[in-house]
Amino acid sequence: MFIRLTHSVNGIMSDATVTLGITGVGHRGTSLLRNCAAMEDVRIRAVCDLQERRLDAAQHTLEEFQQPAPDRYTDHSQMVSEADLDGVIIATSWRQHIPFAIEAMEAGLWAAMDVGPASSLEECWELVQTSQETSQQCMLLENCCFRREPLSVLNMARDGVLGDLVHTECGYCHDLRPRLNATIGTSREETSIPMKNDRYYRSIHHEKRNGDLYPTHGVGPMAKCLDINQGNRFVSLSSHASKAAGLRDWGDRHLPDDHPNRDIDWSHGDIITTVLTCANGQTCTITHDVSLPRPDNSKRYCVRGTRGMWQDERDSIYIDDRGPDHEWEPAETYIDEYEHELWREYRNAGIEAGHGGSDYLVLRSFVRSIAQDVRPPIDVYDAATWMAIAPLSEDAIATGDTVAFPDFTDGNWLTDEPIFGLTGEVAEDRLSFSTLL
Amino acid sequence: MFIRLTHSVNGIMSDATVTLGITGVGHRGTSLLRNCAAMEDVRIRAVCDLQERRLDAAQHTLEEFQQPAPDRYTDHSQMVSEADLDGVIIATSWRQHIPFAIEAMEAGLWAAMDVGPASSLEECWELVQTSQETSQQCMLLENCCFRREPLSVLNMARDGVLGDLVHTECGYCHDLRPRLNATIGTSREETSIPMKNDRYYRSIHHEKRNGDLYPTHGVGPMAKCLDINQGNRFVSLSSHASKAAGLRDWGDRHLPDDHPNRDIDWSHGDIITTVLTCANGQTCTITHDVSLPRPDNSKRYCVRGTRGMWQDERDSIYIDDRGPDHEWEPAETYIDEYEHELWREYRNAGIEAGHGGSDYLVLRSFVRSIAQDVRPPIDVYDAATWMAIAPLSEDAIATGDTVAFPDFTDGNWLTDEPIFGLTGEVAEDRLSFSTLL
Repeated sequence: MFIRLTHSVNGIMSDATVTLGITGVGHRGTSLLRNCAAMEDVRIRAVCDLQERRLDAAQHTLEEFQQPAPDRYTDHSQMVSEADLDGVIIATSWRQHIPFAIEAMEAGLWAAMDVGPASSLEECWELVQTSQETSQQCMLLENCCFRREPLSVLNMARDGVLGDLVHTECGYCHDLRPRLNATIGTSREETSIPMKNDRYYRSIHHEKRNGDLYPTHGVGPMAKCLDINQGNRFVSLSSHASKAAGLRDWGDRHLPDDHPNRDIDWSHGDIITTVLTCANGQTCTITHDVSLPRPDNSKRYCVRGTRGMWQDERDSIYIDDRGPDHEWEPAETYIDEYEHELWREYRNAGIEAGHGGSDYLVLRSFVRSIAQDVRPPIDVYDAATWMAIAPLSEDAIATGDTVAFPDFTDGNWLTDEPIFGLTGEVAEDRLSFSTLL
Repeated sequence: MFIRLTHSVNGIMSDATVTLGITGVGHRGTSLLRNCAAMEDVRIRAVCDLQERRLDAAQHTLEEFQQPAPDRYTDHSQMVSEADLDGVIIATSWRQHIPFAIEAMEAGLWAAMDVGPASSLEECWELVQTSQETSQQCMLLENCCFRREPLSVLNMARDGVLGDLVHTECGYCHDLRPRLNATIGTSREETSIPMKNDRYYRSIHHEKRNGDLYPTHGVGPMAKCLDINQGNRFVSLSSHASKAAGLRDWGDRHLPDDHPNRDIDWSHGDIITTVLTCANGQTCTITHDVSLPRPDNSKRYCVRGTRGMWQDERDSIYIDDRGPDHEWEPAETYIDEYEHELWREYRNAGIEAGHGGSDYLVLRSFVRSIAQDVRPPIDVYDAATWMAIAPLSEDAIATGDTVAFPDFTDGNWLTDEPIFGLTGEVAEDRLSFSTLL
């Protein structure tokens, strides 16, 4: 039933085994663990979680894949300093992503973070500086960058089909009202760090923070289309929040009268609209929309160029002088024609994995980067840039001002060239990394 | 073939005849003229245009409707001071809308302006002050406020079906590249004021200005949902422009090598994204999008509340605890159920008119307001507020800053109550207007 994969996507088949640890094996960490456990050239040597029952479950999962029992840790610092690992996957609650990645790099390991927001601008800088000082890489596991549709559109953009890129839109639009009001045990995503009132860990962010708390699913694929940090960069950010009315209204209708969440004074605006401007003249609009009714889970991707547009919500594409005059065409026509090599290989391999394959591909990218000792295609500069949108939007909302966007690359964006999705043309890394294998 | 209408919508059938003049009888003015000519209780007594052939055409149109020949003018000031009129409809090019409305009010007439942007914030203030000083009303002919779908959604919002309103989106998204590059005679909308290179008159706005040049089609219906100027108001505006690449790219592909437009250095960003915040905590996002390829003409209406949402681009509505669980429903289900009384009457009357009936309804509203001597439902404060978005967005884009939104009502928004669309409950006007009939 659980067969270790003997193939690999992207033409890379390392003889060496990449040894990984995973910190945080809740719902998300377990999913990532399963993906890795199925890879023949990966060995999960250590797992870390605060809860013993989760460690039991992780060990059981590895046994299903005929993998040896992992070393078990309840302390991330101890794991990264003791275990013999090449890299660590961090799938904890949001606040630990960057601190744990920093600890991993300081211990001489590569780090991969699951998606989430930064807590502050300062920790984004510290993440970048730690990578530079330790010569260790940090990758953000932004699976949406590896989704089939955005990868095809990236190919279209690079082929000039859309003309000169002018504007993009994206977001995270998903009704999370039940989850944000859930207590431990009622949500499928339980918290590893018990919070006040035993609430789902993200809930307190919505109580106390007001900004785009989940920018990377949206902005990741758009940033890659726009060559952000590699020939382009974000130069300003403006953000505005609506009032916070959705969670209280939902709670009033669905929670028992004595439920502690009914007293929460939510800070987080239901709709956060953020507009980024780019050095190359483009704009990018991001919508954060998780506490009002809506039936779907939309990323709102839209890419506009001088020759055409892709609108994901409509599943449609329009290209000047192609197809029927001034009519939408089904996106699939183009998504298929411009399918990315990664996806052709992936589909040919017949692999099934989470989130429509994007989980597999993003993890495969991390493993390949370690095995080849090359810069990952979503690197520490991307991680800092995309995650910083959260604290920057909080600042912009709090002050009402447009804020300058920091350049985490220290000017290297001027000369760096894109590497994401350019199979076989992986650029030499600008930093001199030690060989880990 | 051309039958004068003996019925009226909205239950109003005045015995008196409302006498109107029309300034600007190009494409748009002619359409408005035809609508008015078909109304039994309206007499078009004067028409004004710089071009004699247009005056000929207007006179011919009135003859078709068995109306007497109008007085003909080539000078607006002369018409409003000489002709015996109750009100004037201004359908000139954009820059004359406010100055001509001011002249009309100063001459003791009511003014109705076709849609367009203000040239400056100062002229918006002057418009408001002139109305107050002269006790004459000024209405913006924002036909989109009278479209069937937004009127139904307004009913839904007022009935609480959408819960507490939190956020709206709108825009003007229409590929105008051929028209903005057109020379006189190649565009259906010819200019009455010849511009440099005989260009379509809007073209120079795109050459020299950078802001949302056409905000009212989008923001009008959303402002009415949000009770702007009547219990709520816009408090801040933020606006960002993408680069200007679409018109040049189109010109390079479609204009002769020696065409003067090929040398234009366009200032106007292809996508302008504006975010308004409201005193009552809502946000409103406006997109201006006219110089990149797109196949449709979309207003991007979206209304979000704590109980449901309407998304016009998807033609869909979702309401908590109604319909199938977490699935979109066809908007028509609700648009029909909550159809506005104006539309029921309109459809029952079997009238056919431009822009799906909205032209008829907005003109009928102006005529009714004159006949009854009541405040029009889209008044001078609405006109100033919505038209001011153009210069305010130019300021915001030029400085990068969020700008304060002026309160044209001078605090009256705190106590004023909505009148738009509340048939039979027309509020007493706050100003003491003289009876014109």
